Amino acid sequence: MTTTWAPVPAGSGFGLENLPYGVFRPADGSPRVGVRVGDHVLDLAAALGDPVFAAPSLNGFLARGRGEWQRVRAEIVGLLTDPASAAAGTAALHPLADVALQLPFAVADYVDFYASEHHATNLGRMFRPDSAALLPNWRHLPVGYHGRAGTVVVSGTPVVRPSGQRKAPSDEDPVFGPSVRLDIEAELGFVVGAGSDPGKPLGTSDFADHVFGVCLVNDWSARDIQAWEYVPLGPFLGKSFATSVSPWIVPLEALEAARIATPPQEPEPLPHLRDAEDWGLDIGLTVDLNGEPVSRPPYAQMYWSPAQMVAHMTSNGAPLRTGDLFASGTISGPGRDQRGSLIELTWNGAEPLRLADGSERTFLADGDLVTIRASAPASGGGRIDLGEVTGRIAPAPA
Amino acid sequence: MTTTWAPVPAGSGFGLENLPYGVFRPADGSPRVGVRVGDHVLDLAAALGDPVFAAPSLNGFLARGRGEWQRVRAEIVGLLTDPASAAAGTAALHPLADVALQLPFAVADYVDFYASEHHATNLGRMFRPDSAALLPNWRHLPVGYHGRAGTVVVSGTPVVRPSGQRKAPSDEDPVFGPSVRLDIEAELGFVVGAGSDPGKPLGTSDFADHVFGVCLVNDWSARDIQAWEYVPLGPFLGKSFATSVSPWIVPLEALEAARIATPPQEPEPLPHLRDAEDWGLDIGLTVDLNGEPVSRPPYAQMYWSPAQMVAHMTSNGAPLRTGDLFASGTISGPGRDQRGSLIELTWNGAEPLRLADGSERTFLADGDLVTIRASAPASGGGRIDLGEVTGRIAPAPA
Repeated sequence: MTTTWAPVPAGSGFGLENLPYGVFRPADGSPRVGVRVGDHVLDLAAALGDPVFAAPSLNGFLARGRGEWQRVRAEIVGLLTDPASAAAGTAALHPLADVALQLPFAVADYVDFYASEHHATNLGRMFRPDSAALLPNWRHLPVGYHGRAGTVVVSGTPVVRPSGQRKAPSDEDPVFGPSVRLDIEAELGFVVGAGSDPGKPLGTSDFADHVFGVCLVNDWSARDIQAWEYVPLGPFLGKSFATSVSPWIVPLEALEAARIATPPQEPEPLPHLRDAEDWGLDIGLTVDLNGEPVSRPPYAQMYWSPAQMVAHMTSNGAPLRTGDLFASGTISGPGRDQRGSLIELTWNGAEPLRLADGSERTFLADGDLVTIRASAPASGGGRIDLGEVTGRIAPAPA
Repeated sequence: MTTTWAPVPAGSGFGLENLPYGVFRPADGSPRVGVRVGDHVLDLAAALGDPVFAAPSLNGFLARGRGEWQRVRAEIVGLLTDPASAAAGTAALHPLADVALQLPFAVADYVDFYASEHHATNLGRMFRPDSAALLPNWRHLPVGYHGRAGTVVVSGTPVVRPSGQRKAPSDEDPVFGPSVRLDIEAELGFVVGAGSDPGKPLGTSDFADHVFGVCLVNDWSARDIQAWEYVPLGPFLGKSFATSVSPWIVPLEALEAARIATPPQEPEPLPHLRDAEDWGLDIGLTVDLNGEPVSRPPYAQMYWSPAQMVAHMTSNGAPLRTGDLFASGTISGPGRDQRGSLIELTWNGAEPLRLADGSERTFLADGDLVTIRASAPASGGGRIDLGEVTGRIAPAPA
């Protein structure tokens, strides 16, 4: 493996094969774009002299397109491996502990899909026990909907328990108050770099020309608010209070070794949704609740690929824009310990989780800390680290 | 009534009582903010010397808040009524015919509500004939969902017929192709000026401090795509190809004489949704198809007020942002000729409209031109004009 003069601890998943992008604020400066190298951030404006990186978001760089993404990545690798660059490069490195990480891009539109067969099946079994678990459209298109872009927040942002209307089937009238069924959704997010033209649908083969990279997403969900509001127009306030994303955007180029076929799709999708290349991804997630692992969702099990999501989303002529975020939907595998939400892990609250401190959880309690991490095979062996998205539940205001 | 030196034709709905804001591009210059006066646009950067108006969107001005909105409006009225300002003011006037009108603001999040009882009842009767027309949540909260901000376009933009998956109940499998049930939705849009703080729900009394004004909206809808995709997460590609808005944002201050109570709400809404003031609006719309009036939707009949929409939308702690657009949902009155969509006007296609040229319409044909106009009572008598939102259907690409 190529070696670098930069300090990368042994076993780090943030070596030269990864190089994810983020936005950091040094103690004495304004927010700017950097790449993570080991436990440091390389200030790209300082290291490469390109003012597009002296900005509080990645969007300017994202808009440049795949050719530039590849060129800059090669330039960064060149800098990090050239001993002659060590002195100047070292001056552009900030220890992670000395910087604050910010939301890495300005979110244009946010779309959330529902692409896990196991997740959709689990919810169908819980809520429609007397009919087929999957709705008729589910195997024909990647079901999705628009979420609120303005409440996408960076990992670490406290999540205030939302209030809203809820009504249990046995209640006569709805009540308003803090959610009592606050949940997580462990997802993978895809960040659009290069936009597309209105009226020009993209094919699955256009995926890597438009999507820059991936992040981790926790799409916090108030199940009681959602259950009462969602007919007939879908989830709204049950989701719109917060969606957390990891601070590091891992470029697709770092995921080459993770590419796999999606599971078999039956019936075969309509022609515009057929995958031209393998864009399933062998990414393994872990979900920790107060530091204790409660689930290991396998992205490899996702039914619909992100390339199919792009083809679907643009099939009506809607363009992509730089900064669009689309997420996979909750990632659940077939195993009981592979479910990406508490509503599945506790089977709608009927089977509470017992935590190491002796307490039980059906849904989230105030003060709970949820951390989702992920890693993927690296080119040349080993693994790259996708970092983490974390958030602690703050109580509803009195 | 106060008189102006500016040329305002007799009977114009764009006199001093109105003064809506838009963004125009003069033949020889860059896009900038103006107000409409009669059949002219007053270049505000030139007239007032404030660089916030030398911008391609209203957002900078919107973010300043209600105090500034009121101060600038008074300043414009002062300028237009002071004979000493006539020479300099006239130099800042452009005939409408000489400018191109653009999307007046950069859309942050776009939310679409479903606030017309008559519309929701009509759809319920059509699609759920064996159960209650209104779903259980409908009278307890203003049902809504997020739409695609990136495809909000200004009036006059051609609307390309979208393609997508559709499946009639009698079909075994879905097919992909151009929509055969392309529809309109006549709506009123509300433009957020001043954002709010995360975690701080707004009350209905906060409405006018945050919402700057209104526009007309045509939320084009592909009913066949929508019907197949929308369970369980709501409309997505059936709506996301285009949402047209009128070029002029009429400030709330111009709508004082239009304020009325909403129709009686039974059951009484929960406390956070009770209207502190009357924010029903006596705005009358007309829908023309190829120049022929086909409907007169009355906004006065809308069940939920926009102040209630704001209180609901922020009740979970989600903030508003400058540039957020929320629309009322299709406006339908009780009369057959007051329905704001073709699916209602033709009762799901069963009762075609017969047009003056002898042709019939269930849904839109290629080449059709749809124009929605509106007016409202003006302070001091007469009416103000909300302008129009228009769009012509272009055929799907071969």
